[in-house]
Amino acid sequence: MFKTIEWFDGKVRIIDQSKLPFEEVYLVFENYQDLAEAIKTMKIRGAPAIGVAAAFGVALGAKASHATQTSSLLDEINHISEVLAQTRPTAINLFWALKRMKEVASTHACLKVDDLKRVLEEEALKIARKDAEINRKIGEIGKNLINDGDSILTHCNAGALATVEYGTALGVIRAAFEEGKHIQVYATETRPLLQGARLTMWELMKEGIPSTLIVDSLAGFLMRKDKINKVMVGADRIAANGDSANKVGTYSLAVLAKENNLPFYIVAPTSTIDLSISSGEKIPIEERGVKEVTQISGVKIAADGTNVLNLAFDVTDAKYISAIITEKGILYPPYLKSLAKLRKYL
Amino acid sequence: MFKTIEWFDGKVRIIDQSKLPFEEVYLVFENYQDLAEAIKTMKIRGAPAIGVAAAFGVALGAKASHATQTSSLLDEINHISEVLAQTRPTAINLFWALKRMKEVASTHACLKVDDLKRVLEEEALKIARKDAEINRKIGEIGKNLINDGDSILTHCNAGALATVEYGTALGVIRAAFEEGKHIQVYATETRPLLQGARLTMWELMKEGIPSTLIVDSLAGFLMRKDKINKVMVGADRIAANGDSANKVGTYSLAVLAKENNLPFYIVAPTSTIDLSISSGEKIPIEERGVKEVTQISGVKIAADGTNVLNLAFDVTDAKYISAIITEKGILYPPYLKSLAKLRKYL
Repeated sequence: MFKTIEWFDGKVRIIDQSKLPFEEVYLVFENYQDLAEAIKTMKIRGAPAIGVAAAFGVALGAKASHATQTSSLLDEINHISEVLAQTRPTAINLFWALKRMKEVASTHACLKVDDLKRVLEEEALKIARKDAEINRKIGEIGKNLINDGDSILTHCNAGALATVEYGTALGVIRAAFEEGKHIQVYATETRPLLQGARLTMWELMKEGIPSTLIVDSLAGFLMRKDKINKVMVGADRIAANGDSANKVGTYSLAVLAKENNLPFYIVAPTSTIDLSISSGEKIPIEERGVKEVTQISGVKIAADGTNVLNLAFDVTDAKYISAIITEKGILYPPYLKSLAKLRKYL
Repeated sequence: MFKTIEWFDGKVRIIDQSKLPFEEVYLVFENYQDLAEAIKTMKIRGAPAIGVAAAFGVALGAKASHATQTSSLLDEINHISEVLAQTRPTAINLFWALKRMKEVASTHACLKVDDLKRVLEEEALKIARKDAEINRKIGEIGKNLINDGDSILTHCNAGALATVEYGTALGVIRAAFEEGKHIQVYATETRPLLQGARLTMWELMKEGIPSTLIVDSLAGFLMRKDKINKVMVGADRIAANGDSANKVGTYSLAVLAKENNLPFYIVAPTSTIDLSISSGEKIPIEERGVKEVTQISGVKIAADGTNVLNLAFDVTDAKYISAIITEKGILYPPYLKSLAKLRKYL
């Protein structure tokens, strides 16, 4: 099994997701600036994975520091965090990881420079290790929601490639399949960046899970025709009331699931929960470049000068979400209450 | 103004829609077999346009016939019609045009071969001329449903390129714009074949109508965020109860419009109505090749061996349709009644 991201020989190694499924290329980063750029350009993506990448980025930046005083190192860590925080605005996991790294740094402000560097590296490794454990746990918990014979729709990639390994929504599907349940998966291609066609299908085919690729537009009609009987997707940020940001198109799938009386599940680690935000209205939605829509692999598909709106995410209102599957259990509405109960873990 | 299809010097000339918006290439057909292939490969597409293409195909095939007896020519016309009928299964306009051409042929069975050929050519030309007139009429009628300040979503291409000229859904938008109404249009790119990105945006930009291209998945969220306040699309076949087949994704947009309390309009000539079919369940849905999904402009976007389901159309239940705009007036629910009233024209 590949690892999406790992600490390797004092550097950070990632699988280049922009090259999949055609090339399995690994990139090694020796400095946090390049890693930040890789997050921005989505060579690594997926909320949990970019959380881990941010933690590794802080460790990498600290490691390279020439500071002789801990106080200077702490200043540098603040700067490194700011650079990493500028990469992508929607997924909270990134900010969660940066906050955690900064907290660890400040609670160890008494240490010498080299010792603090080591502590930060260990903390980042712990976050990465924990992510893998959390995904397995989510899979164990979530697989009970999948029945033999289910036909599950997933959107974008909430798989091993969106995490350190195993995956969230795809982790649940994987766990059900490993248990011997006969399931099939419909994967939306997920325009504009085709994470479904390129990444999710690659993961599903590697595992031998029966799977079918569809254009995003076909999902609704397959629900209507009883070809799909549940929907499982990841999340990039969950507000205190349960409203969930995820890849653009998720809102539509949730509405379509409701209209067809199908359960719609969000699958995410608790690090995706942002209790500081009361509702989805307040989640910042990343707007990305025009070329993601007007070109595919450098080939133009729309005329020059075409006016484009390219929002990378949307927000699904809590009322459309049947349950939120986390490593701490399955949460049901009302989410204001069930999410608040998790406060002690966050 | 370009013409999507025309009878030109005893041949059929079309604009090659597979090359737009990058090249404005015209193709000239001297035999019906090549024209049938162009329909199949969607060098010409759009329900009304392929109706006209089928009529021209019959005229072209008849013209090239070496028959010396009218009865042999009639046999050939039946064969030509069968070949043309095999091109695409969903849009009824194609079958409507073939039926009309065959009827004209049989009511003129008394004519000599050359005279019958001329009658068929005239009938095809009449169908083409009539299509342009019908679209203008639809525009005149439909534009009253568009208000100053409207932000209209359209899907696929129901424009001049889907007809002889002017368009159906886009014709209504064009008419409202020509009248001086301040409107803006969101065009979905329309995967897999990108008729929205390539054709609709090309038409809108040519006219100077303010327009924005979005991925199909973003449409729902823009409705939710009040960026869109009505939806207008074409149709490929309308059943007696109002259920309407149109480009895949239409069903989803209709559900999303309903959920957000927005009007959802079907715009189509009466030749799209199929009273012989009681409901959408009975409309044949074309399944097209895998490569339309796994490749874009010849660029691979999914791994070899990927399992794909590529339905070209879906069916929108009548309950989601606010009105059907035709050249005979605006039809409202219950459609079983309002459509039946049109029987005399069909």
